[in-house]
Amino acid sequence: MTAPMPENLVSALLAGEKFLIFTHLRPDGDAIGSAFGMRSFLNDIGKKADVVLPTDPPARYLKFGLECLRSADPANYDTVIALDCATRDRIADGGAMALLTSEERFFNLDHHFTNNVQASVWNYVDSKASSASEIAAKIALSSGRKMSPHTARFFLAGMMTDTGGFKFSNTTGDVLRTAALLLDHGANLEELVNILFFSKPENQLRFESELISKQIRRNCSGRFAYAFIPQEMLDKYDFSLKEDEGLIDLLREIDGVVIAMLVHRQSDGFKVSLRSKDPRYPVAPVAAAFGGGGHLMAAGATLKCDSFEEVEKLLLEKIAKVLED
Amino acid sequence: MTAPMPENLVSALLAGEKFLIFTHLRPDGDAIGSAFGMRSFLNDIGKKADVVLPTDPPARYLKFGLECLRSADPANYDTVIALDCATRDRIADGGAMALLTSEERFFNLDHHFTNNVQASVWNYVDSKASSASEIAAKIALSSGRKMSPHTARFFLAGMMTDTGGFKFSNTTGDVLRTAALLLDHGANLEELVNILFFSKPENQLRFESELISKQIRRNCSGRFAYAFIPQEMLDKYDFSLKEDEGLIDLLREIDGVVIAMLVHRQSDGFKVSLRSKDPRYPVAPVAAAFGGGGHLMAAGATLKCDSFEEVEKLLLEKIAKVLED
Repeated sequence: MTAPMPENLVSALLAGEKFLIFTHLRPDGDAIGSAFGMRSFLNDIGKKADVVLPTDPPARYLKFGLECLRSADPANYDTVIALDCATRDRIADGGAMALLTSEERFFNLDHHFTNNVQASVWNYVDSKASSASEIAAKIALSSGRKMSPHTARFFLAGMMTDTGGFKFSNTTGDVLRTAALLLDHGANLEELVNILFFSKPENQLRFESELISKQIRRNCSGRFAYAFIPQEMLDKYDFSLKEDEGLIDLLREIDGVVIAMLVHRQSDGFKVSLRSKDPRYPVAPVAAAFGGGGHLMAAGATLKCDSFEEVEKLLLEKIAKVLED
Repeated sequence: MTAPMPENLVSALLAGEKFLIFTHLRPDGDAIGSAFGMRSFLNDIGKKADVVLPTDPPARYLKFGLECLRSADPANYDTVIALDCATRDRIADGGAMALLTSEERFFNLDHHFTNNVQASVWNYVDSKASSASEIAAKIALSSGRKMSPHTARFFLAGMMTDTGGFKFSNTTGDVLRTAALLLDHGANLEELVNILFFSKPENQLRFESELISKQIRRNCSGRFAYAFIPQEMLDKYDFSLKEDEGLIDLLREIDGVVIAMLVHRQSDGFKVSLRSKDPRYPVAPVAAAFGGGGHLMAAGATLKCDSFEEVEKLLLEKIAKVLED
């Protein structure tokens, strides 16, 4: 479901005084950027706002200084915002919060074209936006109210996460113009880039270098690159896949690769992450074929297989077909 | 020397009909982007233009399709442009071309604050610009003439090279607005990003992974990371440092690192590349102390030492002082 910004959304939103903000489980840079950017903006204009994160965010984001609650009682707030949540059950603490979607005071702000939260009144879902942070930034900027450098930095961090640092095909002229306004508002690019892109722990770098030298496989005339991540290798470098953002780019950046895949065994099955470099060969249908989801060029699924070899065989078959089309 | 865009520069430049374009020796993405973007723009508006590259550009840029000459006789052209050339002897084929700087038809377009080409009439040197490509793009855009997607792509490629994909501190709101206009003109971001950032040859990736696992050293409480690149390791992976752009980012991206350094022995001495992540600790003075040069945050020098250990000792001393200030 995609809709343009509803006409009175900004004024209706800013009529609130006490805001409760949710984002999705296992928050990434856009979840963090949009939720904490919105919180900071609401603070900028003199309103009370809390963000709920039921679990710790990945370590790198802690450097942004994230003040949040583990849980909260919606009765203490007059407005509830869900940012970057495509489905009700992805809303962190979702069971309880999903009930709120029927209330007039619930704002569903997102950029996933699969968004089906369907709040009773306020839905602003723009799948052409690069990120929920871009949507939040547009709301804040279009209000004409003041925005602190701190706020601008959060929004820009989210936009840069979901555009892969302005490298992915969702980077449009509009995205860069919104980002330019955030820089004009004093967003500290240097600081956020150091946090997002130049803060790889040395153990991760060493883990990656062993993964590259031992695990990379290529197929389909080199156009498909993939790797299985052994748990022992993670253990050896004390590295956790909670911090895995960008790991798949190791494969994607190889010359000639069109589709990249990472596979890791988890308790509920083999988690498969897929990325495409070419819109003629989208990976969303591949993920969907195995019950997964995501974006056209970035998708994933969890497969209940007995071995990596089985996963490899299934995916190889499917991806060979995509690449020969 | 830094000067704003001279008032009549665009009309004076576009009064020409046959253009000869130079950029610097060992051209990087900005040299390529600005020179070939300018050539393409001049073609867009019906003018003749040739680019001179005395030697092959790095392989990755060949995918852009670079039509150029090895040398040319200026007598056959009515206008000569030097793009991204800070000094006369950096102009490719410089000996002869430096003579042209005294002529009215010579345009010196650059963004290095050290630019001392001093053309007799036309100098447009803006050290606040991210890149020569940004300057060339501004000239083209401000002319109000048409610009093809092909042209826009070259300029954007140069801007993205010199801003590290919009990550370096030279990325301002204005840079992003100019980049947005280039996207509006149809620059194919996906294609250029694949060429610039997602086209690492697998041998380079494997070389890097061995460099990481064997050569990285850290000092100054981890804030200084550096590596010596052994020639044997380059040979083993059939990798050449002509393609080294981005290699130093392997060190810069490590969490906690403030200054990164790569050292490689060449026939004329040890080539040292330096990068800083924090403007409080610029590396230009360090490079200058050893007779080198560059930008505040990205500089280099060549040291006539007998061993890497000697280079290491000299640099370690200097950088420890920078970092304790």
